[in-house]
Amino acid sequence: MTSELTIALDAMGGDAGPSIVIPGAELAAIRHPTYRFLLFGDRAILAPLLERHPKLKARAEIRHTDVAVSMTEKPSQALRRGRGKSSMWQAIDAVRTGEAQAAVSAGNTGALMAMSRFVLKTLPGISRPAIAAIWPTLRGESIVLDVGATIGADASQLVEFAIMGEAMARCLFGLTRPTVGLLNIGVEEVKGLEQVKDAARLLREMSLPMEYVGFVEGDDIGKGTVDVVVTEGFTGNIALKAAEGTAKQVATYLKLVLNRTWMSKLGAVLASGAFTALRDRMDPRKHNGGVFAGLNGVVVKSHGGTDELGFATAIDVAIEMVRNGLVKKIAEDVAEMNAIIEPVAQVAE
Amino acid sequence: MTSELTIALDAMGGDAGPSIVIPGAELAAIRHPTYRFLLFGDRAILAPLLERHPKLKARAEIRHTDVAVSMTEKPSQALRRGRGKSSMWQAIDAVRTGEAQAAVSAGNTGALMAMSRFVLKTLPGISRPAIAAIWPTLRGESIVLDVGATIGADASQLVEFAIMGEAMARCLFGLTRPTVGLLNIGVEEVKGLEQVKDAARLLREMSLPMEYVGFVEGDDIGKGTVDVVVTEGFTGNIALKAAEGTAKQVATYLKLVLNRTWMSKLGAVLASGAFTALRDRMDPRKHNGGVFAGLNGVVVKSHGGTDELGFATAIDVAIEMVRNGLVKKIAEDVAEMNAIIEPVAQVAE
Repeated sequence: MTSELTIALDAMGGDAGPSIVIPGAELAAIRHPTYRFLLFGDRAILAPLLERHPKLKARAEIRHTDVAVSMTEKPSQALRRGRGKSSMWQAIDAVRTGEAQAAVSAGNTGALMAMSRFVLKTLPGISRPAIAAIWPTLRGESIVLDVGATIGADASQLVEFAIMGEAMARCLFGLTRPTVGLLNIGVEEVKGLEQVKDAARLLREMSLPMEYVGFVEGDDIGKGTVDVVVTEGFTGNIALKAAEGTAKQVATYLKLVLNRTWMSKLGAVLASGAFTALRDRMDPRKHNGGVFAGLNGVVVKSHGGTDELGFATAIDVAIEMVRNGLVKKIAEDVAEMNAIIEPVAQVAE
Repeated sequence: MTSELTIALDAMGGDAGPSIVIPGAELAAIRHPTYRFLLFGDRAILAPLLERHPKLKARAEIRHTDVAVSMTEKPSQALRRGRGKSSMWQAIDAVRTGEAQAAVSAGNTGALMAMSRFVLKTLPGISRPAIAAIWPTLRGESIVLDVGATIGADASQLVEFAIMGEAMARCLFGLTRPTVGLLNIGVEEVKGLEQVKDAARLLREMSLPMEYVGFVEGDDIGKGTVDVVVTEGFTGNIALKAAEGTAKQVATYLKLVLNRTWMSKLGAVLASGAFTALRDRMDPRKHNGGVFAGLNGVVVKSHGGTDELGFATAIDVAIEMVRNGLVKKIAEDVAEMNAIIEPVAQVAE
């Protein structure tokens, strides 16, 4: 199966593990009939499940593993216990060996990132990877990174995130010159974290081949003011979850108010097509999949609590990255940017 | 007018200034018929406006000022230029002298905070004030602080925020034992910023008379998991704006999908009562007013771009604080907590 494109799946990852991964992979197998799948996990559990998913079975292979990383393990502990032999590790390792072109896991985020860094290594010129989210906006979709790979980032790391996010936006959205903004608490130059202000100065002064437009605020993300929103992992993660929480909150309010009177109930029935469209648009399962950017290979993190539809979306994202040659594109961009950045940095010193 | 409760208004503050402040104050005057208002600003602009708002005029007094702080001034510049003589400064100073019990401004946040600290000073035991937002949740309302007074906070400052937020929740929501959570990127003990983890340890170990429940994540805010969410200003501000942006985004989607077919349009007409209720519930003008907590006096910041309804809400918040004696309550709590904290800190050293 080497000549075909292959996705490696950590079949044990996620809150529900194989019972979500296998049906999710079957959906992906139907959507992407030229791809093959490697399923890493406990054969005794996976084999009978696979029997019930013939379309996947026809293009998948089980690779038995004894160990599964738990959702609550510390990354260091997961690395010790799961090194070499866990389903997560082996899925990532299949990308390193070239047997697969991407790995997808719904498992423990910290462990997945630690193992990915360990196995795949970061790209030359990248000091550490980021998790990039594809965020639905009023204008379509934007890329927000980092949403939780690491806490804190200095100015040069924020610049790296900008470079990686910009490459992703060109890959995923087919844009020739995506716009990039730095997340801050005011658009005026006077406000904000020192490292964010320094990153802004770097992005302006280095005349990189990038459409850097300046600071954006929290509400600009949903507006789609820019194609790429750059921030460090702590803030990015909290912004992402605050937005998810708000979307759920509004949906709950909507249900509540529509159930109050018979007339609004009737209205809701007549407008049910619209509500289906709304639900569809807001469906977190259709925006599932955090891309680990900055590694020598494609790794996509699915939400741990998603269902098969959500897991299939994460596989879609991975396939999109493979199809568009994301890793190569980021590597080229980083090299090009570094050729500009390094002389500038030397002068600055 | 000394025997009556009085609210001082920076009549020049906000994107639209007096044309919003005066009608907003009239709404507040109707809602709170026992309160009086001091209007600080340019008499030539305010006097004719006040003529058109007789209910406010009957209980308001104009105090002429020559200088208005602009929305884009740096705090340091505003302090220099507006010290003593700006409408913002004088509104705050009226609280210091006791002529007013609270000040409300829709002006430049940074300048308002800088002047408030300068004029009113922080409460004993509080190293710096926070801006507390009243956040609508699925369970009612929660207090989130800091949402942008300052960037970054160490563990002991986060503990102070917890103490102030808890006092506010008792005042505003009438709870005897509000729950308190620290905003983090994972509920497990292993994750998060060092200062957040240290604050968690302090809150657990000091056995303060406070219902500290642990870490909460971004989506817990909208759920109303806890009554008080504690975080530093950068993340808090971005979370708040990301949530506001998402609420607008969903509202826009909803309009879009309801306008697609005649049947959904008809449904929307029938369910219009429900949509009015939803709009009402999500109306940012009904959740306007950031409370400056930790000062020797009540200062409330209105959103700069709000309308008269929003400005009236900010006045409501200020009056609620005055009525419940927030400043005294926070001061007592801080003193009580310090009596516990200081011996602990000495032992720790």
